[in-house]
Amino acid sequence: MWRCNFLAKSAQKLQIIPLGGLGEIGKNMTVIRVDDEILVIDSGLMFPEEDMLGIDLVIPDISYLLENRDKIKAIVLTHGHEDHIGALPYVLKQIHVPVYGTRLTLGILEGRLKENGVDSGSLHSVMQGDIINVGCFSVGFIRVNHSIPDAVGLSIKTPVGMIVHTGDFKLDYTPIDGKMTDFRRFSDLGNKGVLVMMADSTNSERSGHTPSERTVGAAFDKAFHNARGRIIVATFSSNVHRIQQVIDTAVRYKRRVAVLGRSMVNVVNISLELGYIQAPEGTIIDIDEINNFRSEQLVIVTTGSQGEPMSALTRMAMSDHRKVSIVPGDTVIISATPIPGNEKMVSKTIDNLMRLGANVVYGRDKGVHVSGHASQEELKLMHNLVRPKFFIPVHGEYHHLVQHAKLAQELGMPKDHIFLGENGQIFEFTRDKGVMAGKVTAGMVMVDGLGVGDVGNIVLRDRRQLSQDGILIVVVTMDKASNRVVSGPDIVSRGFVYVRESEALMDEARARVEQALERCEDENVKEWAAIKSNVRDALGRYLFEKTRRRPMILPIIMEI
Amino acid sequence: MWRCNFLAKSAQKLQIIPLGGLGEIGKNMTVIRVDDEILVIDSGLMFPEEDMLGIDLVIPDISYLLENRDKIKAIVLTHGHEDHIGALPYVLKQIHVPVYGTRLTLGILEGRLKENGVDSGSLHSVMQGDIINVGCFSVGFIRVNHSIPDAVGLSIKTPVGMIVHTGDFKLDYTPIDGKMTDFRRFSDLGNKGVLVMMADSTNSERSGHTPSERTVGAAFDKAFHNARGRIIVATFSSNVHRIQQVIDTAVRYKRRVAVLGRSMVNVVNISLELGYIQAPEGTIIDIDEINNFRSEQLVIVTTGSQGEPMSALTRMAMSDHRKVSIVPGDTVIISATPIPGNEKMVSKTIDNLMRLGANVVYGRDKGVHVSGHASQEELKLMHNLVRPKFFIPVHGEYHHLVQHAKLAQELGMPKDHIFLGENGQIFEFTRDKGVMAGKVTAGMVMVDGLGVGDVGNIVLRDRRQLSQDGILIVVVTMDKASNRVVSGPDIVSRGFVYVRESEALMDEARARVEQALERCEDENVKEWAAIKSNVRDALGRYLFEKTRRRPMILPIIMEI
Repeated sequence: MWRCNFLAKSAQKLQIIPLGGLGEIGKNMTVIRVDDEILVIDSGLMFPEEDMLGIDLVIPDISYLLENRDKIKAIVLTHGHEDHIGALPYVLKQIHVPVYGTRLTLGILEGRLKENGVDSGSLHSVMQGDIINVGCFSVGFIRVNHSIPDAVGLSIKTPVGMIVHTGDFKLDYTPIDGKMTDFRRFSDLGNKGVLVMMADSTNSERSGHTPSERTVGAAFDKAFHNARGRIIVATFSSNVHRIQQVIDTAVRYKRRVAVLGRSMVNVVNISLELGYIQAPEGTIIDIDEINNFRSEQLVIVTTGSQGEPMSALTRMAMSDHRKVSIVPGDTVIISATPIPGNEKMVSKTIDNLMRLGANVVYGRDKGVHVSGHASQEELKLMHNLVRPKFFIPVHGEYHHLVQHAKLAQELGMPKDHIFLGENGQIFEFTRDKGVMAGKVTAGMVMVDGLGVGDVGNIVLRDRRQLSQDGILIVVVTMDKASNRVVSGPDIVSRGFVYVRESEALMDEARARVEQALERCEDENVKEWAAIKSNVRDALGRYLFEKTRRRPMILPIIMEI
Repeated sequence: MWRCNFLAKSAQKLQIIPLGGLGEIGKNMTVIRVDDEILVIDSGLMFPEEDMLGIDLVIPDISYLLENRDKIKAIVLTHGHEDHIGALPYVLKQIHVPVYGTRLTLGILEGRLKENGVDSGSLHSVMQGDIINVGCFSVGFIRVNHSIPDAVGLSIKTPVGMIVHTGDFKLDYTPIDGKMTDFRRFSDLGNKGVLVMMADSTNSERSGHTPSERTVGAAFDKAFHNARGRIIVATFSSNVHRIQQVIDTAVRYKRRVAVLGRSMVNVVNISLELGYIQAPEGTIIDIDEINNFRSEQLVIVTTGSQGEPMSALTRMAMSDHRKVSIVPGDTVIISATPIPGNEKMVSKTIDNLMRLGANVVYGRDKGVHVSGHASQEELKLMHNLVRPKFFIPVHGEYHHLVQHAKLAQELGMPKDHIFLGENGQIFEFTRDKGVMAGKVTAGMVMVDGLGVGDVGNIVLRDRRQLSQDGILIVVVTMDKASNRVVSGPDIVSRGFVYVRESEALMDEARARVEQALERCEDENVKEWAAIKSNVRDALGRYLFEKTRRRPMILPIIMEI
């Protein structure tokens, strides 16, 4: 009897399909599928690449989920960062399934859903340590340390075998809230046997061990000790433990704390409400109260650690903030590392703050920031605790995944048990075998304002051309019957040259268009597409010769 | 008699006026002025900031030089990097003065001038160690180590006192060509008394000592030893010593060297010709010959270490290079650090190379790159050798200058002898006093194609708006006499939405424009500016409501 059962089960296949987060930092989303049952891990967004002009954010292409919507049992969340929950407002508009996450994760998510007019009725709160059953899956939420509280890794028991997903994690032996990554749980799972592990690769290129969050407290203490005037600390709003450390240090130095920046205010409020931040009565003051205190009695915690153009700190640096003006004697602590791509914006902000006379504390050697991700020695420990049969490096650009795969190999894992793939790849496992088995649709959907996916490659290509050399619009009114020009050609340009200083160029441009139109008339060219094409070519050639630029040229014929 | 003379001289003032390179990395240019005599140091370009859409490069605003063109005695160059010589093709079109530089510097410059159709008759070659007299200035060219050979610092003897300008430098005790920074010269100058020192601040935030260029050779040796197939090394074309080390290592491992990328080919040819690169007969082969050799007999030196979109390495990574296709087994060495702002492009190139199966050697810990700029301990030595009375930190973003000023202060220099200023600042010195004395016009001129300075803020603002949300053009033909619409409105959009999927939106947009035009007619609005403004408002409001985007709206009225 058991044997029959065993055979039936051993024929089952487990599929792991990443829809985001492999080969990129961001929009993490992974599908776990056994037969007709699907579990989804996370649903994150990514910030647009530099060449995605005008795009606000990027979310995973969920075509696969929409095609299989009836099979989805639940979405489980590892933590409350944007790259893990930020796509949910869009996903939940299309897919109605229960969502499980820890309290802080859901607290932050609820705010996002509200902003987007999405009902949060499907959210179910779990505790670190809980195990829930959804469909054929039994999902355990395992406490991990990360740069946001209430983060979890996952154990997912499936009919085929046990999966461990580390989530984003580090191993902090002296965490701020005293709650360490649950080593024992990972170790127990390892003892019982883990079929597949997926693990965070963000810091797989970094040797050694990521320092404890607590080390930042010591750096804060030093900076506070040296500061004579006001202190301004910029950090990620989601780094609740960091904010707690600012508050703790402020209390020691008898300073009040004001909170600035929309997302910072939101997260601090949620965290205070849920008990993730503790502050003695009266410590936290409203930003409008800062004028009631002397500089040396104040700390301002603010957004803008990435030099984001509209953020509070950037505005202060530009002398453009309504409520806070930087004065000589201010100490500004940048408690964050620039995310790749933001280096220049951060440098500029630092420069502008210094020009206003602020003392700016920043940079790795000052110890005012630590990463939330495991470095190589931590990854090695995790691999040794979990000892999976198969391994898929996740959460990282391709080079991070490659490095993590190498690390696993160095630890003795056979090369063919390590799966290096990207979004859309189907990783298929039985109890003793793993293969890469084809692909599903995966990719990115660009969100621009209210439009989700309505900006595609053609629109982006146009924006790129417009951004480089601008546009010239040539308008002619033509008589339909006679095919003769009645009015125009008029040329209007934007983003091409400063017209007042380029009159000769524009006059000659008009002349070239007139010549082209005359040629069309002489040669009896009647199709408007052909006329437009002639105008475009003649004008484009002339402008390139004169300016070495290729603006977009848009001929418009009005017919009367 | 001598006393009178002394008085006369002591009344003279020395002005140092940076026109570029202070508060930024790039477009270095400094004016030295005593009475009616001007000497210019360097004339560099800067690559455009991210928000300078479509701009090719940025050069200093030389209004001050044009206003004082008769006073300029010469331009002296410190080395052949773009940020020190790149603006000369533009400057020499407007100012005709002798230019002095070392042989390699002029060799590279000549190529640039030729490309821009500028005569190179005014170039005068000097040797490291030479002293020349121009006007009242006596200029010494002092050998320094940098990431390009033939680099110099300058001693400038003026009637008021001695100036030392370090140029870009590092202290390399084991340089590739055996020629060390000329410590003795700096020390001698220090002994005789230096009034003002300007010194490179690029690495002023870096503690310790910048490693010797020779350490890269050891890293190359290791990488070559491990490589089984072809080796591709990407580096800056101007890093001639680096290229020499690639050649030396290739010779040891019995490999031939092919050179790829326009600027790389140019610099290697000039360097071979002038003797700055040595290669045994037959070592360097043409890129078209690579198919005559087996993979393990080949090294390709290429541009593209910054992930530049059109560079050879980026094309290889995109499987888009005509002559070289990456295959598994290739080893690619990225012998450079990403310049701030290029991090993401470099990561992408690495990822794409890895996806094609290449083994990519990159990153600080691999030792395949070292900086060409002095770190803190080297700066301290330079300050101690030269012991100037006054100090101006140059070549760096503002935070670099601030850090360098701090370093000087820590070495015991009085705070009021250190001058922290930016481009356009007049630093004025007598024999015993220094002050900041007003400002001259300084700034940036943007070069776009053949246009120098014809793209200004209005054009850039338009490009920015166009790049974000695209453009809608509304054309109406109106009868002048009756003020009635004869044809249209027609709406054409680019870079806004994918029109085929947004028909309803565009139909409604047209209806809104029609309503606005009707309202104008009803209300007897006759001025076309007013009609246009009504159309723009009505359409803009509707589109923002529906899409949360703000495309540029361009109403055009054709009159008949």
